[in-house]
Amino acid sequence: MAKRFSVSEYTDGILGGNRVMLSRAITLVESTLPSDQQLAQQVLDVVLPHAGRSVRVGITGVPGVGKSTFIEALGLHLVQEKGHRLAVLAVDPSSQRSGGSILGDKTRMNLLAAHPAAYIRPSPAGRSLGGVTRSTREALVLCEAAGHDVIFVETVGVGQSETAVHGMVDFFLLLMLAGAGDELQGIKKGIMEMADAMTITKADSGNEQAARRARAEYQNALHLFPLAPSGWSPVVTTSSAVSGQGVPEVWDVVQRYVQQTRESGYFQRRRQEQNLHWLHETIREALETRFYARPEVARQLAGIEQQVMNGGKSAFGAAEELLGL
Amino acid sequence: MAKRFSVSEYTDGILGGNRVMLSRAITLVESTLPSDQQLAQQVLDVVLPHAGRSVRVGITGVPGVGKSTFIEALGLHLVQEKGHRLAVLAVDPSSQRSGGSILGDKTRMNLLAAHPAAYIRPSPAGRSLGGVTRSTREALVLCEAAGHDVIFVETVGVGQSETAVHGMVDFFLLLMLAGAGDELQGIKKGIMEMADAMTITKADSGNEQAARRARAEYQNALHLFPLAPSGWSPVVTTSSAVSGQGVPEVWDVVQRYVQQTRESGYFQRRRQEQNLHWLHETIREALETRFYARPEVARQLAGIEQQVMNGGKSAFGAAEELLGL
Repeated sequence: MAKRFSVSEYTDGILGGNRVMLSRAITLVESTLPSDQQLAQQVLDVVLPHAGRSVRVGITGVPGVGKSTFIEALGLHLVQEKGHRLAVLAVDPSSQRSGGSILGDKTRMNLLAAHPAAYIRPSPAGRSLGGVTRSTREALVLCEAAGHDVIFVETVGVGQSETAVHGMVDFFLLLMLAGAGDELQGIKKGIMEMADAMTITKADSGNEQAARRARAEYQNALHLFPLAPSGWSPVVTTSSAVSGQGVPEVWDVVQRYVQQTRESGYFQRRRQEQNLHWLHETIREALETRFYARPEVARQLAGIEQQVMNGGKSAFGAAEELLGL
Repeated sequence: MAKRFSVSEYTDGILGGNRVMLSRAITLVESTLPSDQQLAQQVLDVVLPHAGRSVRVGITGVPGVGKSTFIEALGLHLVQEKGHRLAVLAVDPSSQRSGGSILGDKTRMNLLAAHPAAYIRPSPAGRSLGGVTRSTREALVLCEAAGHDVIFVETVGVGQSETAVHGMVDFFLLLMLAGAGDELQGIKKGIMEMADAMTITKADSGNEQAARRARAEYQNALHLFPLAPSGWSPVVTTSSAVSGQGVPEVWDVVQRYVQQTRESGYFQRRRQEQNLHWLHETIREALETRFYARPEVARQLAGIEQQVMNGGKSAFGAAEELLGL
């Protein structure tokens, strides 16, 4: 087991912008050991008043869309041109540190990773979606306390992670390929509905026209869809991480969104709702985990589930039966 | 309190197609009295093997879209021309039996209500979404056991009820008005994603061209969106409940969907998944209800929620605190 420090060693390090201590504290929130969890909560309680002052951006898109190169291009723009301090986190429940985590291979973002104002952290390995979500949300708080004023939360665009990420960010960006049709099949139903902006990537090397056409089509399609509670109409752009064209414009869109929703009060209200949501989610998860871990429930669950699936038992009757154990 | 019968009086009545007994049994599943609930479960257990043999269709659309007239027109087509036995249920958590339930005013469907092969039941009054959902799902089982082979579950298109209804039906139909733009604002984000078909209503009296245009626009927009797990591409039609034009075609679409998904096995698989989902939902709801009803939790919840909303306490720390009470 890695070395553990005192609460103040962690918090002094984080608040001082010490990235080694930040990494160690994130390792702590990722740990499943009860003693680590307890220590992590103490660290979080101390730094919490120093968190929250960032713009949180969720970024998703199917493998092949060029997510790493886009994030590196946008990230370099933010740290080099805009003076921001950026943290890039990931929610990827399928990742194994030994395997193919989307951010595990940092060499795909080597320029960004080497920049002193950027901090990149891969998805924790071998955890459930609930576990990854929880630790990513806590890591986000730690990064903010360490002075990062822009947080990217990256996810893979093919599963349920997007909903979890959508629940922890201010702005949700969807990367898309031109050509629609087959390439789209990987994007899960409902993800497009969450997007505050879409950018058609790889708008370069002869692909510019197809990208512009895709942009127009998506923009039209999105206009038919209902307005989000933010009052914001999603924007579609084209961009090229290779030429850099259109990359700063994506950040302009984010800034416009932040300004508009801060003025309307939606930005703050949504953060409050997200906090409340996470409280109730955490409680729900704990209640369910405890219930299904009870030996008498665990013993009978599979059999009862089978009867319910086949229509031999009503869902409500079966629930009563399990709850009465 | 209304009269109660024995389990076999209820079940003999239902299985014999006695609609008075069917109504009384539905009243029983809607009751919040523990003794009624228990009796209802016994009735459900007996009739369950006779349920499930219907096509379940969710129908939604904002107020003003002409839902009642459309349902009456489609319903009359089914009972008069197709020889079906139809039940129409509703999920409308806001309804009060004294107030404006969407189906409370049966006179809006007086021809259908008077037909011997149709059974119309308004949404139960004064219950939470969870309560309405549960009793509607149980009423659906009772209607099937009483020989209804098509079930419509109507909802209002403006809230969370749609997701609940989507979870209990085989096919989800969205009614839309031509003219898009402002009229659409009432449709909640995400509802369109659930639609297996959309029909542009009121395609009559000079509105035909606008309806056709809207149809083409939605059809194009839907094509850009990802394929559903059913493998079915959503269909958009136009219809007029007044002239009857396009109404049988909506049913043709439903039949095509049922045939295609039965052949692929998706239809049966989805039913099984829905059953399993309801089991776990029921358990989750019961666990949460019990937890939040605990006096020590109830006493401290509001204060802790306030701290979490304002960022003074982390969601996870606060959850630990409440769970430890």
